[in-house]
Amino acid sequence: AAIDAALAEGPLKGRHILVTSGPTHEPIDPVRYIANRSSGQQGTALAAALRDLGARVSFVTGPATTPPPPGVAVIRVESARDMLAAVEAALPADAAIFTAAVADWRVANAAGQKMKKQAGKPLPVLEFAENPDILATISRHAQRPGLVVGFAAETENVIEHAQAKRARKGCDWIVANDVSPATGIMGGAENAVHLITEDSVEDWPRLPKAEVARRLAQRIAKDLT
Amino acid sequence: AAIDAALAEGPLKGRHILVTSGPTHEPIDPVRYIANRSSGQQGTALAAALRDLGARVSFVTGPATTPPPPGVAVIRVESARDMLAAVEAALPADAAIFTAAVADWRVANAAGQKMKKQAGKPLPVLEFAENPDILATISRHAQRPGLVVGFAAETENVIEHAQAKRARKGCDWIVANDVSPATGIMGGAENAVHLITEDSVEDWPRLPKAEVARRLAQRIAKDLT
Repeated sequence: AAIDAALAEGPLKGRHILVTSGPTHEPIDPVRYIANRSSGQQGTALAAALRDLGARVSFVTGPATTPPPPGVAVIRVESARDMLAAVEAALPADAAIFTAAVADWRVANAAGQKMKKQAGKPLPVLEFAENPDILATISRHAQRPGLVVGFAAETENVIEHAQAKRARKGCDWIVANDVSPATGIMGGAENAVHLITEDSVEDWPRLPKAEVARRLAQRIAKDLT
Repeated sequence: AAIDAALAEGPLKGRHILVTSGPTHEPIDPVRYIANRSSGQQGTALAAALRDLGARVSFVTGPATTPPPPGVAVIRVESARDMLAAVEAALPADAAIFTAAVADWRVANAAGQKMKKQAGKPLPVLEFAENPDILATISRHAQRPGLVVGFAAETENVIEHAQAKRARKGCDWIVANDVSPATGIMGGAENAVHLITEDSVEDWPRLPKAEVARRLAQRIAKDLT
């Protein structure tokens, strides 16, 4: 009933918004994988905030520790390639918000059997292949949503890196934050973000992730309506 | 009160048992790491079963999705090197059960800053270094517990690999299982194990992980008393 009410009301009523969230896992062998540190908290909070404004939300999530919010369509994936396929399958959308921490690289020589440690044998060498760039792909897609928002987790030169990323990817906004271990933001309850658009940089105060999500959802609603 | 009662009763009263559990995470850079697939379910169930028989349990756990059981001393670690240090600090013990899925290798060239994807730049190459072998180290330790039990997650030739592992590591028993994806054991609620001792192989039926834990705890109690 709460969900029906949300869908029936709010500035995003009738809008379809795609949100990606969580990390991706890239297999090395059947028991090992490469992961990104991402709890999925910010993406989960954003999906909930968009739902609360009346949007129909498709939530494409990697293996996150935070459970997905109720009242959204959940599509679970593991790898970056799985995530791109799920995102393309969910189009068309009015907006797409890419909060997931997607692996830039996958292991090119992933093994079908568990790699064994053997005395006298050399250590394994992992060769990488570049993963598809989901944000850039959707920003130039034939079915590009009207608003495309990327996230940038940086550890140095946050604003400059994020502005360059916005231009390079072809998206509309970048939400950038500093995830240096000292900030405690990775896996923590708060976030301090910068909203970077074509011609502006907004520095938001450090806020609970749910409040960052509510503000961002309001901005998205303002842009779409 | 339930914990006091457990500590006061049972065949393992007055015994100190060390249990390792979960995966380890080996950093690549501040936002990426290599992980093993391990939910920590079997180790958590075993720690609870040993506690229920009256043991004082030290539970050294990597970042597992299963929360640690109540009534045990929890020591949280990330990497294999952290885990070895925590295990050595917890000695002496009457028995040590190594259920953790410890990374064989760590990244030798881990980066202090996030590795960036840059057009025209070659992909990164990960160089590995061998991690300390916790099971072998404790099996030959000056403070070696009277009973040392390893786990072996295999995807082929399960019994042979586990027997060879027992001899190579110098431990007393190996609990071996087949974690091929088709078995559904990794991350699942059940386990089908083989208990390998110096002169025997027992094939246990497929059972809930809590029941595997209870049987193994009983065997440990029988051995120690």
